[in-house]
Amino acid sequence: MSNKPQLEVCLSPALLHLFDTKDRIVVIIDVFRATSTIAAALDNGAKSIIPVATVEECIELGEHTDNSITAGERNGKVVEGLQYGNSPSEYSKDFVAGKTLVLTTTNGTKLLHMVEGAAQIITGSFLNLSAVCDYLIKQNMPVLLGCAAWKDRFNLEDTLFAGMVVDRVKEYFDINCDSAYAAEQLHHSLNGQKPIDFLKNSAHYKRLSAYGLQSDMEYCATVDKHNVLPVLHGRELLIDK
Amino acid sequence: MSNKPQLEVCLSPALLHLFDTKDRIVVIIDVFRATSTIAAALDNGAKSIIPVATVEECIELGEHTDNSITAGERNGKVVEGLQYGNSPSEYSKDFVAGKTLVLTTTNGTKLLHMVEGAAQIITGSFLNLSAVCDYLIKQNMPVLLGCAAWKDRFNLEDTLFAGMVVDRVKEYFDINCDSAYAAEQLHHSLNGQKPIDFLKNSAHYKRLSAYGLQSDMEYCATVDKHNVLPVLHGRELLIDK
Repeated sequence: MSNKPQLEVCLSPALLHLFDTKDRIVVIIDVFRATSTIAAALDNGAKSIIPVATVEECIELGEHTDNSITAGERNGKVVEGLQYGNSPSEYSKDFVAGKTLVLTTTNGTKLLHMVEGAAQIITGSFLNLSAVCDYLIKQNMPVLLGCAAWKDRFNLEDTLFAGMVVDRVKEYFDINCDSAYAAEQLHHSLNGQKPIDFLKNSAHYKRLSAYGLQSDMEYCATVDKHNVLPVLHGRELLIDK
Repeated sequence: MSNKPQLEVCLSPALLHLFDTKDRIVVIIDVFRATSTIAAALDNGAKSIIPVATVEECIELGEHTDNSITAGERNGKVVEGLQYGNSPSEYSKDFVAGKTLVLTTTNGTKLLHMVEGAAQIITGSFLNLSAVCDYLIKQNMPVLLGCAAWKDRFNLEDTLFAGMVVDRVKEYFDINCDSAYAAEQLHHSLNGQKPIDFLKNSAHYKRLSAYGLQSDMEYCATVDKHNVLPVLHGRELLIDK
């Protein structure tokens, strides 16, 4: 028996019920684009981020929260009734510093609300890869990497990120999970390419490209540009310090 | 718009509802071991195979079917009340020729019964890789490659096989499916290794090894040893001729 904590990868919210989330660190991964936006906004000085499930909650909470911004998307577009979208480049220091971002998205915020009993919930993306890996190693607890996927469908971008994490932290964990192994192989198949070049093959890249969001995805695929660790405290994501 | 038919890969029965199965060829993939046993038994002269969902059905149908064998496993072991297991090497020509195999398994037969509205259902495994690929190319219809997985969990062996199929047939299909792309990458990551060497990393290999089934899995991972095409007609799997 290994004394190392277990690490597993869940490829879709539709598979979440197969995994134990209790007493684990669950890493929510929604590279295009919720968890990238979260890392960018917090790194640029947002006070906190409140992920919410529905547009109605987002609007209502925005009305009752001082100095807040309501933001979100459905199917890649800003939703009517919300002020901003789900693009990390929208949240510059000048704009977001000191504000609370109330955020609702198609996949990432949904997954976050599905997780039950976790010891901690954190969010990961290429933008904060090293912060996530360093934290997981330091905590020395069981981990579930949770891919937000696209409407429950397996996606390349979240899996590739999970594979990068596996590759970096694996010596510290006991891993007996085919999804983790496959994700790591996907990472190895990058073979020197930049993540974005690989991710141009993904269905989501093609989908968002149709809205002219290529530069947004390039942003999201940049490693360690916003190297902060968002941790859920109550209903708010805050930077771990 | 491409005029080629669509091809997608479903990584787990728990994701099947996300895919259209209507009017498609659905390939049931349960490498360890149902669809390997099916290919071996049919190639060795079995008259037909009747996949059934439950042990009770298996026993009852066996009693009412002339010259039949009841076979199956749950959690890798022969079930009490059934005559034989789910090992392709059990079904030699001498033993199985002319007989009807009534088969129930943990994952593969379950997935087969979940599929609704398919134009055709066929079964695939390394043992009949070329037969599957040749058939898909010839039929020129939309395809769903359905991995049986392990109790709904993603597994390496079925995904690797799906990736081999994708790699062989992709020029004939329109593929915009991240699962198909990832499966193909998994296949490429073999990089000259034999499938079995790669699959030794899988959770299922480790699980079945604990029952001493290594040679069985080596058998299942052999490409084109039983190059027949099992097609579902009514409730029976028969060789396509």
